Amino acid sequence: MISLSRTEIEALIDLRNIAPAIEDAYRAASAGEVNLPPVGHITFPDLNADCHIKYGHLSGNESFVIKVATGFPTNTAQDLETGNGLVLVMSAKTGAVQAVLHDEMLLTDVRTGIGGAIASRALARSDSQCVLIVGTGPQAQRQIEAHAALMPNPLRFELWGRNANRAGELVETLSKEFDVNNAKDLEKATKRADIIVTATGATAPLIHSDWVKAGTHITAVGADAPGKQELDPALVARADLIAVDLVLQCLDHGEISHAFQAGLIRANDIIELGALLDSPQSGRSTDEQITLVDLTGIAAQDIAIASSILDAHAK
Amino acid sequence: MISLSRTEIEALIDLRNIAPAIEDAYRAASAGEVNLPPVGHITFPDLNADCHIKYGHLSGNESFVIKVATGFPTNTAQDLETGNGLVLVMSAKTGAVQAVLHDEMLLTDVRTGIGGAIASRALARSDSQCVLIVGTGPQAQRQIEAHAALMPNPLRFELWGRNANRAGELVETLSKEFDVNNAKDLEKATKRADIIVTATGATAPLIHSDWVKAGTHITAVGADAPGKQELDPALVARADLIAVDLVLQCLDHGEISHAFQAGLIRANDIIELGALLDSPQSGRSTDEQITLVDLTGIAAQDIAIASSILDAHAK
Repeated sequence: MISLSRTEIEALIDLRNIAPAIEDAYRAASAGEVNLPPVGHITFPDLNADCHIKYGHLSGNESFVIKVATGFPTNTAQDLETGNGLVLVMSAKTGAVQAVLHDEMLLTDVRTGIGGAIASRALARSDSQCVLIVGTGPQAQRQIEAHAALMPNPLRFELWGRNANRAGELVETLSKEFDVNNAKDLEKATKRADIIVTATGATAPLIHSDWVKAGTHITAVGADAPGKQELDPALVARADLIAVDLVLQCLDHGEISHAFQAGLIRANDIIELGALLDSPQSGRSTDEQITLVDLTGIAAQDIAIASSILDAHAK
Repeated sequence: MISLSRTEIEALIDLRNIAPAIEDAYRAASAGEVNLPPVGHITFPDLNADCHIKYGHLSGNESFVIKVATGFPTNTAQDLETGNGLVLVMSAKTGAVQAVLHDEMLLTDVRTGIGGAIASRALARSDSQCVLIVGTGPQAQRQIEAHAALMPNPLRFELWGRNANRAGELVETLSKEFDVNNAKDLEKATKRADIIVTATGATAPLIHSDWVKAGTHITAVGADAPGKQELDPALVARADLIAVDLVLQCLDHGEISHAFQAGLIRANDIIELGALLDSPQSGRSTDEQITLVDLTGIAAQDIAIASSILDAHAK
């Protein structure tokens, strides 16, 4: 039985190695090759906290994966991370526990970053250079890391956050490693961006449709629960191509649910990222199109990253 | 973070110490003080195997518990146990992982044994001496251990199994520690028994109503899934008092579901074990009554035993 600490897991992470496994996971999920039972959920109403249990099995895999992830917003008062948990890798042949990955949410953060970059790589213009990151949470860094590692061209990043101080501090830290600047004005930064990545917990639109220039690609990872929203529904309706990780989940939980429920888009207008990766001809066809990928996160990604970490550990 | 192996956990088990916590868990479950979300479930149809995820939180507890239990019947061909898994203890204050108990099903087996003995103690005649154990699986030993530890009087056990060879071997092993004999004839043994504990995976009745003498107590732990059955429905209907761990679960999954679905008993005829423990006057009132407890297992027991093990570890 393997037990790895967060530090040990961190040392095994190689974004370029993990990305193909996560692409395969999207493909398998869209092809119906992943058994993904309903997510388990327990709440702690007094603390506005909860625990999610995502689990599933990819057809033919020797292992299956159970991810336990907690969210306790009150942790910030004790200067603790709000996200925590672990990933169990279990034998699909004997039911034995093969590994406990004490990642404390690290793998979820990393796979979400990689998912965002895969989405941008699939649909953004190939000459994209300027990436606007909206948000100052853990995903701001993860999306920058993953886009820098996985996009074909060198990128320059701008970062904007609702909390200007936090945005400034984060840019100062990240600029040691990446070409990243503080975007003071969201409207102007939106107009400059080739790629926009929204990663906030906002509950009202931040990005307005008329700020977005033709040819922009948007990857929305923030809105992963009912009630959250980062994009103007008119922008969702204006998009020439909309992709999601899982249609059923996104129509209910995701960013696009608002436009869908308002009747501005139809389920048939949406393609799954896995199907898109399988048939690139269904992707962007002109440099003028606006493309949008809405990601809410699926257990297939957790399976892929856990397997990748164990493979790296075995080497 | 605490991580304990099966061997380390085994050394911390004290049935008499754990029993009061499990009694409290039954009480709390019946009083609606345990948040028990629906059980998670993933199947591996090619192997007739599955994994259950039971989890919950007892109001006011500092921790909550997630139990992952797998059942892979094909393991026997490799001389491996069919049950496996672990128990996670998580902070209900911060969401952090407090302990990983690598019990490989041990705690489920032990808590089920204790639950059976608590049920028998609550309803059997106080002068009960002869206990018939029906079954040769892990619960045969667990029920004997727990009844011997928790019942007020010294007991003698008889054991009967559908596989006579296995029954003989098991009796030989257990008789080193307990007063246990091989019951060759189930009908005769049933007629001798003061307490009957059924713990098989049978799918048709083994114990017939006219074999059971007045004053007998029956604890049925085997039938924990739809389709399983150990008792003649006429015997269930004949019982003067029927208790269960969780009414809703037992009407659907349990031994008594057959009699319920045949219209022989009503939901109102059934009391929950937790309520019974809280009001002993609702228990057995004469030495002639036949009493029956049907147990299907609840996550509240898992919470209780995990907490007890961590308490013992802390000492």
